[in-house]
Amino acid sequence: MATDMKNRIEEANKAAIQRVLASRPHLVDVKPAIDVLPNMNKKSIFHAGPPIKWNSMCGPMKGAVVASIIFEKWASSWDEAVKLVEEGEVELSSNHDHEAVGPMAGVISPSLPVVVVKNEKFGNVNYGRIVEQKVQFGEFDEQAIQSLEFWKNVLAPALANALSKLRSQGGVGIDLKSIMARALYMGDELHNRPSAGTALFALSIMPYLIETGEDKERLSQIVKYFLGNEIFFLCLAMAACKATMNAAKDIEYSTLVTLMARNGTEFGIKVSGLGNRWFTGPAGMVKGLYFPGYGTQDANPDMGDSAITETTGLGAFALANSPAILSLVGGTAQDAFNYTKQMREITITLNDTFLIPILDFQGTATGIDIRKVVKTGILPVIDTAIAHKDPGMGMIGAGIVNPPMEAFKSALREFATKYKI
Amino acid sequence: MATDMKNRIEEANKAAIQRVLASRPHLVDVKPAIDVLPNMNKKSIFHAGPPIKWNSMCGPMKGAVVASIIFEKWASSWDEAVKLVEEGEVELSSNHDHEAVGPMAGVISPSLPVVVVKNEKFGNVNYGRIVEQKVQFGEFDEQAIQSLEFWKNVLAPALANALSKLRSQGGVGIDLKSIMARALYMGDELHNRPSAGTALFALSIMPYLIETGEDKERLSQIVKYFLGNEIFFLCLAMAACKATMNAAKDIEYSTLVTLMARNGTEFGIKVSGLGNRWFTGPAGMVKGLYFPGYGTQDANPDMGDSAITETTGLGAFALANSPAILSLVGGTAQDAFNYTKQMREITITLNDTFLIPILDFQGTATGIDIRKVVKTGILPVIDTAIAHKDPGMGMIGAGIVNPPMEAFKSALREFATKYKI
Repeated sequence: MATDMKNRIEEANKAAIQRVLASRPHLVDVKPAIDVLPNMNKKSIFHAGPPIKWNSMCGPMKGAVVASIIFEKWASSWDEAVKLVEEGEVELSSNHDHEAVGPMAGVISPSLPVVVVKNEKFGNVNYGRIVEQKVQFGEFDEQAIQSLEFWKNVLAPALANALSKLRSQGGVGIDLKSIMARALYMGDELHNRPSAGTALFALSIMPYLIETGEDKERLSQIVKYFLGNEIFFLCLAMAACKATMNAAKDIEYSTLVTLMARNGTEFGIKVSGLGNRWFTGPAGMVKGLYFPGYGTQDANPDMGDSAITETTGLGAFALANSPAILSLVGGTAQDAFNYTKQMREITITLNDTFLIPILDFQGTATGIDIRKVVKTGILPVIDTAIAHKDPGMGMIGAGIVNPPMEAFKSALREFATKYKI
Repeated sequence: MATDMKNRIEEANKAAIQRVLASRPHLVDVKPAIDVLPNMNKKSIFHAGPPIKWNSMCGPMKGAVVASIIFEKWASSWDEAVKLVEEGEVELSSNHDHEAVGPMAGVISPSLPVVVVKNEKFGNVNYGRIVEQKVQFGEFDEQAIQSLEFWKNVLAPALANALSKLRSQGGVGIDLKSIMARALYMGDELHNRPSAGTALFALSIMPYLIETGEDKERLSQIVKYFLGNEIFFLCLAMAACKATMNAAKDIEYSTLVTLMARNGTEFGIKVSGLGNRWFTGPAGMVKGLYFPGYGTQDANPDMGDSAITETTGLGAFALANSPAILSLVGGTAQDAFNYTKQMREITITLNDTFLIPILDFQGTATGIDIRKVVKTGILPVIDTAIAHKDPGMGMIGAGIVNPPMEAFKSALREFATKYKI
């Protein structure tokens, strides 16, 4: 490659990563999806990962779509819901075409509230779906639907009121980057382990929640929810990462990966210098620990938008920081160190805000460069939950997965074509 | 030594450490010291470490005693307060003669509320003093006194009410051991870094606080206090450790250290098989990081009852677990690993509840054996804050310190005499 072109790419990546590092995502509101998501219709259901048609969807994503339809009361059973979809009555679309992210199946339907995260530095706004343990893993029974209803009827309105109170006092929102940096000091990697993030967020929003005058039974219920749902903060971490990476989109000549996401069938990436195009390959099988009674034969391939955390230098890229999570995903502390250090070989920089105390406060490896992935043959590492391959079965374990090299290679080929290298 | 005697000691230590491991400290109440501390009089001031007379007290402990006198309104200035003490109007006594612990100077005066921690397994009750940033470091001005007044007038009564609400719902108290075990998974070592403990405790007590009907301004103020005072949980960790180690007292033939404490002049230990006797040596100088403008020439020697955490296998014994604290106390992650692993050579067992994820979930080294300290020459390691040597100056840094070998050697000599070895 000509030195000229190489310099151009380096400059573009420098500009892109500066935007990543300078981003300041804040939680500013919680609103029904239909009110805020661009181009959402009354019969839209958005999902995780690259766009995919109903017939190609994996079991748990089908289950989650059906759950959303039942939640929206467009139908009341699996058969009715499937019929609606097959008759074309429901618009299925990727979250990423609507500035959103969602965990696992990631399904967002019109009346489901989403967290609204604004990048205060660059102005872009992104949206995140609640994390729960049922619907997103493909369950669609009454209990699964109830987990969405608590969010819709209790927690989301309470948070919206608290944020309104915060704004009335001159605040812009809850500074998520600050919470994330502090949570890293407390052993989170902010993908499968956001426990400290949840505690810090709960304490940060609580004064405003209290000041709204929320009644005490409701307030107590909300505190207990945060205590019992350590995973809560993942939805905020994901939306914050999305708002961070979206600020680095569309920089000509940049080889920075701005998105990694999976729909349970395909894994896909987007690249800053390559516009809105997806580069995909088959979703991988997760290597990890299974709940008793389940094994690899039951597992769905890798799924969810949560790999936006790894895209931003968190998740498995910060695994050395979060040894407590190894009891969930498997492996030793040494493995975790190795993953985290290896990611430096395929990234643009070390983060200046997200630091790993156990690595003597060095930053997490941040900003995947497609050139480095292809050249070194080192794939990004992702830690993730495992869904059962059949709808209605739910979560069965957690582990570690790599994306397909194919996605990075085809992106690099397209890069060479587009920029005539 | 005869095998017979060796076996006897091993059996005694086994019994002692079993009591340490089986302990279940719970926060059950918060009460004015005069109402609960054994043998406290209306003019008592208790302090950290071995007993010490006024004239031998270091500067910051004198400052803290004066602050307590002003807080109690027995006098209103340094001179008046010192006169009272010198005239014998104030009874000075070690916290450990009253089942209590306090951080740094550790001063407890009659109207100061203390946390009441009951070991639900063995029934013993111990008391802990609030941690703040002023009086315990020897400051005695108006602002310093105010930090005690917030505790006395706002936080302590609110916590007492919340615990009363908890009991009315059939609870026994807040399970501190559970919080401590979880906090270790979140990067605390529970001495100088109890940040996760504070967040988890705040969330655990909050539902009851809310249910007491506390007014919203007050509630909001309390949540903000927890958010801004990450050190808060140290007082609960210390009282929990005291309640744990006191359950292992007075076991004949046991060489287990049940207490390490410092008064800023002397360091002292107690040993299970050696009754209530102190074994002391001069308090060490702390090696660490100083706040800008201060250095070793300004530092007071090691002070406080907080080494009860190291006595229980936490604090610097769990330093590898808490690399984030190295920014406060100095050193590298490798140093932290080395300390933590080295402590295994002078302790009886690895803890079965306090686990270190980064060491692949092995337990912290727990239960110092005076024989092992003397035989290996390896001294316990303690991480601690540094007070200015003059009264009124406050905290100036934090670091790492070792106790004097003399204390362990004289305990071992007494052991040999008592048990005719």
